Formats: sequence, structure tokens, C-alpha cells
Amino acid sequence: MVLHIDAARMRDDLATLAGIGRTEAGGISRTAFSAADALARQWYRDRCVAAGLDLRVDGLGNMFARAPGADTGLPAVWSGSHIDTVPNGGPLDGALGTVAALECVRRLAELGVPLARPVCAVVFSDEEGNYGHLLGSRGLVQGYELAALEAMTGRDGDRLMDALASWTWAQGEPTATRVSAGSVHSFVELHIEQGPHLEAAGTEIGVVTSIVGLGGAVVEFTGRADHAGTTPMTMRRDALLAAGDYLTRLPGVAASVGQQSVVTCGLIRVEPGGANVVPGRAHVTLDFRDPDRNRLIALGRALRDAAEASAEAHGVGVLWHGADIVDPVPLDQTIRSAVQAASDALGLRSVAIASGAGHDSQNMAHLAPTGMIFVPSKDGRSHSPAEDTDWADLERGADVLLNTLYALATC
Amino acid sequence: MVLHIDAARMRDDLATLAGIGRTEAGGISRTAFSAADALARQWYRDRCVAAGLDLRVDGLGNMFARAPGADTGLPAVWSGSHIDTVPNGGPLDGALGTVAALECVRRLAELGVPLARPVCAVVFSDEEGNYGHLLGSRGLVQGYELAALEAMTGRDGDRLMDALASWTWAQGEPTATRVSAGSVHSFVELHIEQGPHLEAAGTEIGVVTSIVGLGGAVVEFTGRADHAGTTPMTMRRDALLAAGDYLTRLPGVAASVGQQSVVTCGLIRVEPGGANVVPGRAHVTLDFRDPDRNRLIALGRALRDAAEASAEAHGVGVLWHGADIVDPVPLDQTIRSAVQAASDALGLRSVAIASGAGHDSQNMAHLAPTGMIFVPSKDGRSHSPAEDTDWADLERGADVLLNTLYALATC
Repeated sequence: MVLHIDAARMRDDLATLAGIGRTEAGGISRTAFSAADALARQWYRDRCVAAGLDLRVDGLGNMFARAPGADTGLPAVWSGSHIDTVPNGGPLDGALGTVAALECVRRLAELGVPLARPVCAVVFSDEEGNYGHLLGSRGLVQGYELAALEAMTGRDGDRLMDALASWTWAQGEPTATRVSAGSVHSFVELHIEQGPHLEAAGTEIGVVTSIVGLGGAVVEFTGRADHAGTTPMTMRRDALLAAGDYLTRLPGVAASVGQQSVVTCGLIRVEPGGANVVPGRAHVTLDFRDPDRNRLIALGRALRDAAEASAEAHGVGVLWHGADIVDPVPLDQTIRSAVQAASDALGLRSVAIASGAGHDSQNMAHLAPTGMIFVPSKDGRSHSPAEDTDWADLERGADVLLNTLYALATC
Repeated sequence: MVLHIDAARMRDDLATLAGIGRTEAGGISRTAFSAADALARQWYRDRCVAAGLDLRVDGLGNMFARAPGADTGLPAVWSGSHIDTVPNGGPLDGALGTVAALECVRRLAELGVPLARPVCAVVFSDEEGNYGHLLGSRGLVQGYELAALEAMTGRDGDRLMDALASWTWAQGEPTATRVSAGSVHSFVELHIEQGPHLEAAGTEIGVVTSIVGLGGAVVEFTGRADHAGTTPMTMRRDALLAAGDYLTRLPGVAASVGQQSVVTCGLIRVEPGGANVVPGRAHVTLDFRDPDRNRLIALGRALRDAAEASAEAHGVGVLWHGADIVDPVPLDQTIRSAVQAASDALGLRSVAIASGAGHDSQNMAHLAPTGMIFVPSKDGRSHSPAEDTDWADLERGADVLLNTLYALATC
């Protein structure tokens, strides 16, 4: 049996949600714990009420929707994503997985198909890390000490605890959000790819194999500040020149480690920072990723070696300030097979793909067998008003999610 | 006849002045119109009184010291420099020329040698441009409209007119500082080189041929902001990667134009400026200089071509936001000969040299035949606590200044 979502209903829901927090620049600003986030949650609650679903909220604002009477005590199949966005983000990142999970839960309820275990739609708080990276899902998996929550602040320096105190969409203690591993049977998240691979391959469905591992560092080149007018070119020890040389090496370093390795410098800072002063210091902030832990470690090592080479080539010093590595998270083979089977049953083209972005699924994977479904992103764009996916692809993705959840709830 | 300064007196003066505005970092912060600047002026006034010199102050705080009765109505020979410093600067930039000019005026007076025209020691206000680039000397040569002065603000956004209003070391209207060309016979400034050439050549005296011309531009590379995790290296249009490539080309571009050409990027800014976002824009601020106007123009053109090449190599766009060129200022051949003759008479090794830094002399050159004398800077350091010159070199420079002024005042 192949199930289908109510496409018109889901399309309406996505369009309505996309209208909440819309900016003049054409994007969507629905950052966590903002007024727009609250409006979106009110809308979500109303949609649950309209569908006759029960809604529960925890102390960090994670929300759980399920059919009444579905609480059989058996571990539930979970699906969901996040309702918050980056500033001036797009209409699909998080929203797609949130709306599709809601649609699946109510569709299964209205179809009346018998299930062996309950299915639950979840909305995770602050996935985009306005206050904390993957805040809500980490709360479910690890929980937070009060001191940790009290130390969290937003982009503008405002405190998370102040935001929570005036927030009606959280109930109970923010330190009591941890969920026992036995209460979740499995987790599946539908998401846009946010990259160009599915579109380039002409493929409708991505079966996600893993979530990328992440490394970070600040590379500090130390030269000598000098007068820009009186110091001959040949006598300079220009820290920014070494940094420029380093930037040009990054693509080659990534390619030397692996096809899926990426390295980004999105931030660079110069000291003393005067237009007429040869830079004495340059700070290069690195973000580097790979789906394989060993390659990620090799990538970090190669980046460090390249920094030494750039420094030596330009007669300056270099310091490597490395951050801890976030390990890649492999996704569950059983869930991947279930997604693959659902895609096949719907006659769709699918491909195995690693996620280059972080997701709540990487936390959920520590709680239960977890999988992700990707649909194409036009031109690979995301975190911007240009974020877009054809409706047909969104509908296909939601159908794959529905049949995957149904299989997991009846196996 | 070869004259000599009172070396002990000048050495004491330099040491005393170096104690005014001393910082914990070992440098000197005596920025224009600061309390330290006021203390230095009070000390200068006291030294004039002790030497029996008359001191006059104009509406921008430029100060003029000369022997009483020296106002014969004949155009005067001027010498001087500035008493202000950059933040945490050194003890010699400006101070040397200020103290040496004072020493020359009082030495000529006490020696009682007959002069054909008066000699005047001058202190220019705000050479380092706390409020305006070469503020005081520009006021003498061009004068300022009130509106221009009212628009000038300091590093912290404070207004020049507010600073002047509470400043006792200015007298008269700040708009009435212009000096008629006929009133100045010639101008000579003694200064540290602030570069490494004299030291490297083992030469005691630099006869300055010209003051460097200056160009400026902001080169804006325009790529595409993308997700640092999901965008493969090969599909990026990274504005900062193009900027890095450009930085590595700058030394080659300078060398291709001329041995004295210099190019500096002391400031770089990235948008959107997130650690996990591929840069969509990079702004590279350029300072480029050459003593020859045609080479300066060629240098600007070559830098623009290189920016196009870097942009093309990395598939991004580029915009060139150029500032007006400040023309190089050739110094007067007669004054250069007088400096050369004085140096020869003292048995010193001298060399013709262009100034890579800006000086009040470049304004004075529009008012009267102007020359500059350089003494070596240890390791080329300046605008820093590391700024240093052997006392023997300072004394030699002051003796060359004394004999040059004597020659100009008696010719």
C-alpha cells in the first residue's frame, strides 16, 4: 500500500507559515524566541487543534503533536524539524520538515490505518542557534544544567533565561527536557538539501547517509606592523600577505583530502587595521567539514601544515588556535533502507548523500535510530530569500516521509 | 664657517619632550589637542622664554618662535615640524624637527652672527591628522572655510571646533591662518627617515628630493554568499578567495612598476562575515605610493588590471572605488643644494632620497622653496615605541640644519 499526503493542505500550511516573519528584503526572519517565532507556534497549535491532535510543550519550547489516545506506552516514531530561521532566511529550511511531519501525523490519523506504535510530530527549539547550537534537540538528548542555560546569550547579548521567562511557548523546567532513550522508536527528518547535488544529478530524493563532521580554527599570522609609505616591499613582514597566500591554498588542501571535504574562511581580521599600516597580525577563521572522521582529522592536519607553509613563504610566524572537532554522525542503516523502500515504491529516483549542514537529527541519532530525507534545493541556495524548491519535489519528499513513518509504525 | 648646535641643550630638550605623554607601553601618545599636546606646548613656550625668543600662535595652534627685533619685514627662513604624535608613537617623529629648529633659532641668536633675513622656528598643529591630515600646515598654505573646520571630527567622533574652543594654545580665528607667499623666504624640515634606506647604506644624511605621491582605492570583490557546509568547493564563488589571490599579486605589481613603488592593504572586510558562510563580498583597502606622478598613475592602473585578473580567475565580479591621487611634491633644487653643501662642509656622507611618508613640507612647498633633511631610523621603525636613532646621527642632522638655515639667511 502506498499512502499520499493531502497535498493541497500541506501546500496551504507551508504558504501560511512562510508569511510569518516575512522581511522587506523578501526573506523570513523567524529567529528563535522572537515575536515571529511565537506567532508561528500559535499557528502550529491552531493547526493541531483543527486536526484534533494533542500538543505538548516542554521547558525549552520543544513541541510534540500526536493523535489523542495514541499514547500506548510503546516507543513512538518521531518526525519533525524546526520552525525558527536564520535572520532573513528562506521559506523551507526547517519549515518543510515541520509542516510535513504535522501533515503525516494527521494524515495517518484521518486515514485510520492501524499502527503498531504511535507517530509523533515534533518541533525543535532554536535549531539555528540564536542562543545555542541545536538548542532544543540537545535538551532532549543530553539535558542542560541550569548554569549552562544561564550562561547562554543571543546575538545581541540578551540572556536565554530572560527570553524563556517571558515566553509562553515553553512549559515546565528548561532543565527537565531530557527524554529517555526507550521512549523513542525512531526519528526521521525531511529537509531541503541546501546544496546543489540532487539538482545537478536530476534526482528527486536524497537518502542521507551521515551528517558531516565539523572542525574550526583561528589561524593567526604574526608579522611586523610597519609604515605603509616608508617600508620597501622587500623589507616587509606582512601578516596579511601570508594570510592571502593561505586563502589561495585552501581549495587545494580540501581537494587533497577528499571530494567531500570543504574549507571556508568566512571571517578575517587584521591588526592594527589602519589603511596606511602594514598588517602586523592577521586572524583567519576556518570552518572545515568532512563526513568521515579520519578524513576530518587529516583535513585539520593538512590545513595546519599549509598555514606553516604560507607563514614560512612570507617570513612571518603563525599560531594555530584549534577548536574541538564535532564528530560526523552516521545515520541508521535500517531507517535508510526504509526511506529507500518508500522512495522506490513511489517510483522516485533517489541517491545516497551526506549532509554538509548540521541538523537536529545529529542529536536525535544518540536517542534512537535516525534517518533524513533530502529534496533538491534550486541552485543549492539556502539561508537566504533565494531558497527554493519546486512544489512537486516538496510533495514527493512528504510522500516519502509519510510512507517511511507508516512502515516504521507498523513493522 | 661651520656652526654647531649646543648639543647638550638640544639633547636635554629632546629627552624632556619625550617624557610628555609617555605611555605604559613605552611609547608616546601626544595626539593633537590632547592634554599631553598642551603640556608639550607649555614646555615649548617656557623654552622660548628661557631663550629670550618671541612666540606667536595662530588660530589653529601653529606656533612661531623668533628672536626679538628679528621682524625686519623681510621674508623669513622657516624651519620646524610637529609636536603631536600618533597614539603610542615614538620620541622622534616631529619632535626632532621641532626641537632642532628651536635650537637653531636660539643658537643663531646667541652666536650673534649677522643675518640678512630673520629665521623662524615653527610648530605645525595636528600633523598626524587626528582631526585633519597635515591640518596646521594646510591652514597656513590654503586656509580653511568655517564649514570645512566644522565638519572635521577626531578618531572618536569629537568635533575639531569643540577641541579648539577649549584650547588655550590657539589665538585668533581658525579661518584666518593663511600666510602670504611673500612672507616666507624658504622652509627646511629636519626629520627621521622612518624607513631603512639610510641605515642600510651606512649614510648619515638624506637630502630629500621629493615627497611621495599617494593613491588609494577600495577593491570590492563580489561573489555569492553560500552555506559553508553544503556548497562544494568547486561550485563556490568565494569573494575572499579572489581577494586572497589579489593580495598575493600586490608585491609583483609594485615591482613591475618601479623599485620605489609600494602597495599596502592594511584593512580588509568581508560580508556577510559569518564563520560558516562563504564570503559574498570582500573589500580590500589599498594605499599605494610612488615619488613619480606618472609611475603612480601607472601603478594605479596596474593594480586595477590585477584586480580584474584575480576576479576573473575566481569567477567573481570586481568594483574599483578609487580615491583622488595626491601628487608627489618635488623639493626645491636650491634648498637641496644648500643642504648638500652644509652636509659636505661637516664632512658627512649624504645621499639623495625620496620621502615615502607625508610631511608638512609638502604643504610648505606651495608657499616657499622647501627642503627636507633625513637622519637614519634604526631598523626603519617609526610610529611605534621602537622608533630610535643614535644621538650622534641626531646631532649631525641638527648641525646640517643649522648651517643650511644660516646659509639661507645670509645668501
